[in-house]
Amino acid sequence: MLDMFFSPRSVAVIGASRQKDSAGQGILRSLLKGGVFQSPTNVPFKGRISAVNPNADSVLGVKCHKSVSDIPGQVDLAVIAVPAKIVPLVLKDCIKKKVKGAIIISAGFSELGEQGKLLETEIKAIAKGKIRLIGPNCLGLIRPGVINASFGPCMPKRGNIAFFSQSGALIDSVIDWSLENNYGFSAVVSLGNKADLRFMDLLGWAEADKDTRAIALYLEGLKDGKAFMKAASKVSMKKPIIALKAGRSKTGMKAVSSHTGSLAGSYEIYKAAFRQSGMHVADDVEDLFEMSDVLANMPSCDNGIAIITNGGGAGVLCADHCERLGVSLTKLSDETIADLDKSGMMHPAYSRSNPLDLVGDAKHERYEVAIDTLLRQKDINGLIVIQTLQTMTQSMLDADAVINARKKYPSKPIIASYMGGKFSKKAVEHLQNNSVPQFNVPYRAARAMHTLIQRKKYLASY
Amino acid sequence: MLDMFFSPRSVAVIGASRQKDSAGQGILRSLLKGGVFQSPTNVPFKGRISAVNPNADSVLGVKCHKSVSDIPGQVDLAVIAVPAKIVPLVLKDCIKKKVKGAIIISAGFSELGEQGKLLETEIKAIAKGKIRLIGPNCLGLIRPGVINASFGPCMPKRGNIAFFSQSGALIDSVIDWSLENNYGFSAVVSLGNKADLRFMDLLGWAEADKDTRAIALYLEGLKDGKAFMKAASKVSMKKPIIALKAGRSKTGMKAVSSHTGSLAGSYEIYKAAFRQSGMHVADDVEDLFEMSDVLANMPSCDNGIAIITNGGGAGVLCADHCERLGVSLTKLSDETIADLDKSGMMHPAYSRSNPLDLVGDAKHERYEVAIDTLLRQKDINGLIVIQTLQTMTQSMLDADAVINARKKYPSKPIIASYMGGKFSKKAVEHLQNNSVPQFNVPYRAARAMHTLIQRKKYLASY
Repeated sequence: MLDMFFSPRSVAVIGASRQKDSAGQGILRSLLKGGVFQSPTNVPFKGRISAVNPNADSVLGVKCHKSVSDIPGQVDLAVIAVPAKIVPLVLKDCIKKKVKGAIIISAGFSELGEQGKLLETEIKAIAKGKIRLIGPNCLGLIRPGVINASFGPCMPKRGNIAFFSQSGALIDSVIDWSLENNYGFSAVVSLGNKADLRFMDLLGWAEADKDTRAIALYLEGLKDGKAFMKAASKVSMKKPIIALKAGRSKTGMKAVSSHTGSLAGSYEIYKAAFRQSGMHVADDVEDLFEMSDVLANMPSCDNGIAIITNGGGAGVLCADHCERLGVSLTKLSDETIADLDKSGMMHPAYSRSNPLDLVGDAKHERYEVAIDTLLRQKDINGLIVIQTLQTMTQSMLDADAVINARKKYPSKPIIASYMGGKFSKKAVEHLQNNSVPQFNVPYRAARAMHTLIQRKKYLASY
Repeated sequence: MLDMFFSPRSVAVIGASRQKDSAGQGILRSLLKGGVFQSPTNVPFKGRISAVNPNADSVLGVKCHKSVSDIPGQVDLAVIAVPAKIVPLVLKDCIKKKVKGAIIISAGFSELGEQGKLLETEIKAIAKGKIRLIGPNCLGLIRPGVINASFGPCMPKRGNIAFFSQSGALIDSVIDWSLENNYGFSAVVSLGNKADLRFMDLLGWAEADKDTRAIALYLEGLKDGKAFMKAASKVSMKKPIIALKAGRSKTGMKAVSSHTGSLAGSYEIYKAAFRQSGMHVADDVEDLFEMSDVLANMPSCDNGIAIITNGGGAGVLCADHCERLGVSLTKLSDETIADLDKSGMMHPAYSRSNPLDLVGDAKHERYEVAIDTLLRQKDINGLIVIQTLQTMTQSMLDADAVINARKKYPSKPIIASYMGGKFSKKAVEHLQNNSVPQFNVPYRAARAMHTLIQRKKYLASY
């Protein structure tokens, strides 16, 4: 439905500037190379790329046309980075040329007050029924592996999270961050002032997109609360939506209005409405992607889980957080304990209870037996596997034990908490490359499990 | 006072095993090389190292003696890694040899129930008034740059946080983690079952130690609550103490009792007592070190701070969290706004309010002017500086702006939130190397500022 944005065959950059650090040149570079900054995740756009700049012959080796009308052949998508006051004129040109979609990068609209609002109303009237718009005042759109029509730093890794954001700067940071944390995206869209396309439109796209398995939203305000909630309720049944809402405080609400011209509204009302629509509410950026990652990669589950650890203290901390969050720890059955005893792999001082403390000298065989035995117990619906890095710990093999158990018990989620840094890195990456969510501290693992249980509850309630 | 542990001249490993992944051999290696795992932070112990093993001629090239009595010359510290039942005998030998301190690594004491308790009572009676003990059932002690008398993975970086922990495994993970996150320690001690030395003794050492500027505790239970609180109240006046308490939940309390044989007690009572003693309460491991780092490296401050950002959304998120935590944002004075306007460096659309949004195209000169102008305003007591990584952002120069302002305004804390990963890494390390606390998400920056304000309140209340 929004193919002109996500799968265009021909894209024109209008306002392809000769100035090196301008948005216009950045976008052209991103289409050509995949990103402004060099990253192994960058993929050049494989369709046709044209440029419009009446004052230049060519930019970055791409011939410049005087106007979009001069471009030979069809143009599916225009990315507009010209001064705000010229945008109406450019839009009219695009409509004449039968361009189907435009991403308006230019700022200087409703975020600037009354005069800007008038200009925004004007472009909305021009576009209505003739061309779809993303923006204005936005960073653009990235579909990793396909197209980078933005001036973000580079293309993120291809993955299964769709991220739609009302803040462009946040997208920049999130992309940079994702490269270090191994997150991947099916799409990243900066919505800006939402003159035309709104969150609900993008939810619809993400629902249908076969790569997307979780939808992350950063929003400051909604202009169409009821319609959004209706759309979100429908999409939530199929794919999880996780929202981070900014502008919850008085100061924040004031700041939001000068940032994107949105009305923030009461956070409590938003939160209640989000939850009613089956959405998950994140507290900060880290939360947003941790929750998205776990929901995209793990099955949801009923309450009642187990914790396996090689460090007693870490197990206790995790149990504390589970209890506080309402995640209950299933009692180990007599059969399970008998099986563990019989295995001959347990340490004489192992805890024989949940959390299951394997004791510090646990090697991977002990992890393997424990993970398998606990997952065999019917009312253990999910597992948190903690590893503290002791000198005899076999991180990579411990990670294999988790990865293999995922394959054997596909309906039971496993969350890893490999606590460490320098010497745990390889194993952590191994887990992440195999789609096992991994958290450095037990608290986050407990919270991830809580998210999966919430998801199951919502799905079961319908 | 505890020099035999922290500055010994001569150390003996009793139970120096020929088995490669044993604790005994690990400790000997750590004394010789600084750590079991190779790390550039490792420093070999410069004093005399001896080994005791009646069944070996030498281990790792160190000659083995039949017993500690056979070692020529004075031994200040014995590190004991022999089976539990032999520990009483070894301790008596140590006392005969006039060894001043012993770290008992061996497990198999009160954490194992009644029989273990008897053995622990026995060693306490043997040691009383004759030799000081750390442990049993512990990982050992590390004083970075001086001695690694533990079987942790390696020596962490030398720094200004003293970390005392009732869990050994947590120490392993924290060291591994600190190497990636640039934290440094003045001392790391695993207390184990606390047969002799308790938290309060170590607090006393840390209070006097000139390198220590913050004291981080992981504790499961206290045997001497009142005495501890008294000691903590005294030390808190001079140096901040941050505590992470495990065993808060019912399940957690049960797990604690099988882990270190401690009684966990009600968390609410602990928390109230901690706060009354001027201690800071952490919620998880990450918290513990983030709070310790900020308290060690930044002055405390009165409430009333400012936020500077180049991303509107990030500023809003930070303001939201500040308000929720009770961190108030000072109104920018007319003079401050006039100075910003006069500078000629601001973007026409800059926010002119707190959070101060410099707009996405901000280069380092704009940050410089904004930081300096805001810190000049008397009732702005601290600053959070947020940077989202946009394509024109000059991370390293932005970091310099923060580092220079720290020197110019030493009494006003600055917390950085450079949001990003791959392309922000260098700047983040630059900040950390200059002791500026840096957080990836605005929430953590807000919480760090809250911690500094709490600290000032406590100090002012006396």
